[in-house]
Amino acid sequence: MEILYEDTSGKCTRPARRGRFARQSAAPVNKQTNRRKIPAYALLDETALQAIEQQADWILDKIGVEFRGDQIALDLIAAAGARVAEQRVTFEPGLVRKLCSTAPFEFQLHARDPANTVTLGGDHVVLMPGYGSPFVTDLRQGRRYATLNDFQNFVKLTYQSPWLHHSGGTVCEPTDVPVNKRHLDMVLAHLTLSTKPFMGGVTSPERAEDSIAMARLVFGAEFMEQNAVMQGNINVNSPLVYDDTMSGALRVYAAANQCVCVSPAIFAGAMGPLSPAAVAAQTLAEAMVGIALAQLVRPGCPVVMGSFHSTMNLKSGALTFGSPEANLATMALSQLGHRLGVPVRSGGGQITASNAPDGQAMQDSTGAMWSTLLSGAHQVWHAAGWLEGGLVMSYEKFIMDLDHCGAMLTMLQGFETDAEAFGQDAYFETGPGKNFLSTQNTMRHYATANFQPDIPEGGPFETWAENGGPTSAHRATPRWQQMLADYTPPTMDPSTLQALTDFVSDRKALMPDEWY
Amino acid sequence: MEILYEDTSGKCTRPARRGRFARQSAAPVNKQTNRRKIPAYALLDETALQAIEQQADWILDKIGVEFRGDQIALDLIAAAGARVAEQRVTFEPGLVRKLCSTAPFEFQLHARDPANTVTLGGDHVVLMPGYGSPFVTDLRQGRRYATLNDFQNFVKLTYQSPWLHHSGGTVCEPTDVPVNKRHLDMVLAHLTLSTKPFMGGVTSPERAEDSIAMARLVFGAEFMEQNAVMQGNINVNSPLVYDDTMSGALRVYAAANQCVCVSPAIFAGAMGPLSPAAVAAQTLAEAMVGIALAQLVRPGCPVVMGSFHSTMNLKSGALTFGSPEANLATMALSQLGHRLGVPVRSGGGQITASNAPDGQAMQDSTGAMWSTLLSGAHQVWHAAGWLEGGLVMSYEKFIMDLDHCGAMLTMLQGFETDAEAFGQDAYFETGPGKNFLSTQNTMRHYATANFQPDIPEGGPFETWAENGGPTSAHRATPRWQQMLADYTPPTMDPSTLQALTDFVSDRKALMPDEWY
Repeated sequence: MEILYEDTSGKCTRPARRGRFARQSAAPVNKQTNRRKIPAYALLDETALQAIEQQADWILDKIGVEFRGDQIALDLIAAAGARVAEQRVTFEPGLVRKLCSTAPFEFQLHARDPANTVTLGGDHVVLMPGYGSPFVTDLRQGRRYATLNDFQNFVKLTYQSPWLHHSGGTVCEPTDVPVNKRHLDMVLAHLTLSTKPFMGGVTSPERAEDSIAMARLVFGAEFMEQNAVMQGNINVNSPLVYDDTMSGALRVYAAANQCVCVSPAIFAGAMGPLSPAAVAAQTLAEAMVGIALAQLVRPGCPVVMGSFHSTMNLKSGALTFGSPEANLATMALSQLGHRLGVPVRSGGGQITASNAPDGQAMQDSTGAMWSTLLSGAHQVWHAAGWLEGGLVMSYEKFIMDLDHCGAMLTMLQGFETDAEAFGQDAYFETGPGKNFLSTQNTMRHYATANFQPDIPEGGPFETWAENGGPTSAHRATPRWQQMLADYTPPTMDPSTLQALTDFVSDRKALMPDEWY
Repeated sequence: MEILYEDTSGKCTRPARRGRFARQSAAPVNKQTNRRKIPAYALLDETALQAIEQQADWILDKIGVEFRGDQIALDLIAAAGARVAEQRVTFEPGLVRKLCSTAPFEFQLHARDPANTVTLGGDHVVLMPGYGSPFVTDLRQGRRYATLNDFQNFVKLTYQSPWLHHSGGTVCEPTDVPVNKRHLDMVLAHLTLSTKPFMGGVTSPERAEDSIAMARLVFGAEFMEQNAVMQGNINVNSPLVYDDTMSGALRVYAAANQCVCVSPAIFAGAMGPLSPAAVAAQTLAEAMVGIALAQLVRPGCPVVMGSFHSTMNLKSGALTFGSPEANLATMALSQLGHRLGVPVRSGGGQITASNAPDGQAMQDSTGAMWSTLLSGAHQVWHAAGWLEGGLVMSYEKFIMDLDHCGAMLTMLQGFETDAEAFGQDAYFETGPGKNFLSTQNTMRHYATANFQPDIPEGGPFETWAENGGPTSAHRATPRWQQMLADYTPPTMDPSTLQALTDFVSDRKALMPDEWY
């Protein structure tokens, strides 16, 4: 199944494939509830798309990308026909796109509970919590450094939500754990406290290896040789640099046939030119190189074209999120990824620079989420909890964002235009000026008709004011507290659990604590 | 100029015209800054659109619409071929659409300052403040009944904002003015405190006449015979009823060649069946009848296909806004209006059921605004200030909404994909791993590159927390206060001003106060 765009002739159309050769087919796709039924929005026309693709080719031809300290990567790329001069690699126009062509457009990311297995790509949507925050906040305890307990809490909350399909990666930094041991505790939490797909460590090739080794204890090495059960997030050191940590971790995940998400990180005007067109072109160029490297390591291995981009307040220098320029770049990148023929991780999500889960936070987040989902992005990081430019995971914003994830996923289902939806019988029961509330059609549907948020509504003003006028953020607090109280861990075979905990303690015992 | 939809072949396409006959051409269109350059999103395919249009025809054929107490309207419609039985009117399928066909798809709404003249329809977007709230609120004085002073304040604020193109109508109810005299003070405020287009009174045919008479004092009767300078909002008493107040006011505006906006008001499940498909079909049916009546009164008179719809929390019975079901209906109605060939007033806008300008308020409002603007609605009521299901105009939310209006209008401009946007020279100045902030390309563009909101950003957490952690709502307060302090009234010819104030005092003197 491929992404469908709307057109006005009544036929859904597929994006033109450019420079695609053999297409790797993935395992059969399960029927899932996270498939979009409404078409993707096509922001750009063919002329604009080609201009951006040509600019990406120009960057890779005239400027190139550096692989710093990774001779294996340089050798692989040179052997594939790229020009290598010391650490700098340049490419003939079209070559990188051709190297990406063995990547699948759609594949499964297997979960410990098969019911939670997701498809990445096609018309599927996979939502995930925030990633990478050193702080957490809630309205009771305030802002503080994140701990392993917070990390585990967010894994538990994500596990319980029907609107997040993936446990995420470094949902928040467990800052009370030594830096060199965090990946062990995080992967352990993802594997034991949840049964959703997850991301493993990437901060060194060894930590990537540890993560994969732990997953093998659960899924089996043989299964993982053929199937992806985890993702690694490979951040490009934009502009145009892959350091050996990232390219090394990329090679580890690709070699193990696990999913590589390549995420350029471009603050427009700082890591590249200012314009949305430039952000899109450079993101495409940088991402294609990482995807090409993954395909050279293991043709057909699952990849995601990621992006993370931001605008700035050019007066204050502060990063801004959910800006119109960023949302345009997000929508363009969905289209460009569809044309490349790989799943797209959106640069959007529910992101904001706001310090509080206030109006600005949700204005930024909601707009960024619309640009993400309407344009047909397949995977959405930072779909819940992200605050303060990513410095903070907010327990209340997490709950508020979940409600919006549910609303958006509901909207992506579209609506029926059949006789039951039109309710002709109800018109015969009532008529002009009459109330439809008691009609059979309303009675048949009222229990399930509308999406119902989890945060209770404010209610009539007077009652609400008497109760102290709680904002939606305040009304979210009891919800996450209740969810944590209600949490029941999924079962796991005791010997598997023992093997995991033994692995973690053994690895920890071998390493002195490092705190940087 | 007609609305353009995206497609994937690189060619923008126009919606198919159905049942259109002679098309009334409007006056030449001025170049305006509120034209969209990005394509409209087409939610529905041809099959779904036809199903909804057929359901609208079915409603009008089998159930019909009642005109209560307006024999003139009934006679006009009967003469046009409809079946009239007492007050009930039914139509052969296709007849109403045919009667709508003399309405222009695009026309100008002239402003007192020609620079503020707007085009309704085509690829133009006209944003307006909220409408109809009996209360106002701000963070200093709290929630209270709206007064004429509040009304004048919102007219002044709207006048000053570059992101609102239209002064609105009953922005809030001036509850300190007798009900039967409010329209005089409101029209006076729109005409004297602002130079943007506006809406006149509709709460009785006489008040509509007063409004038009006042406009004639400013624009001249001859000019208004050929040109629209104001709008009247005709609310349908959904389901399927036009009362004589509304159809009478409709006929007054249409006869005067002033713009009639026909707005069905459907709470799904109460004024019609629950589903978005049913809401869209019934809205289309009801709106087409009003548009047809206006065209029968005066063929070619300017009309807008309006809508106002809401979902409900079907557990509590409370109205909800910005829900996924409502946003789907909004997007469908934009498409349906394009196919009917008339400008569309969206059922969305920046609307919410929240009692406070908090996270929920902006989540609801932002999503509703995306559905509105991405789908190609032409006119957006409730684009600023609307809170608490429309009961309240909030000074702070007004400012917060304005920032989002600016962001959305910026996004609708799309982006360039030319050499300057790609900034190739900047790559030669820098290179992999280097910062682009000091490149000539960044220097050339940083002053104008990104949309800049008016609400100051929160700044670094520590500073923000020391300042008491002001939410975006709190940071909006000084902005509206400053705008009101900075307000300078537009000039008006003294004799015109005298004529207006004389008209108002004369009319007031003739009427005893009525408070209901």
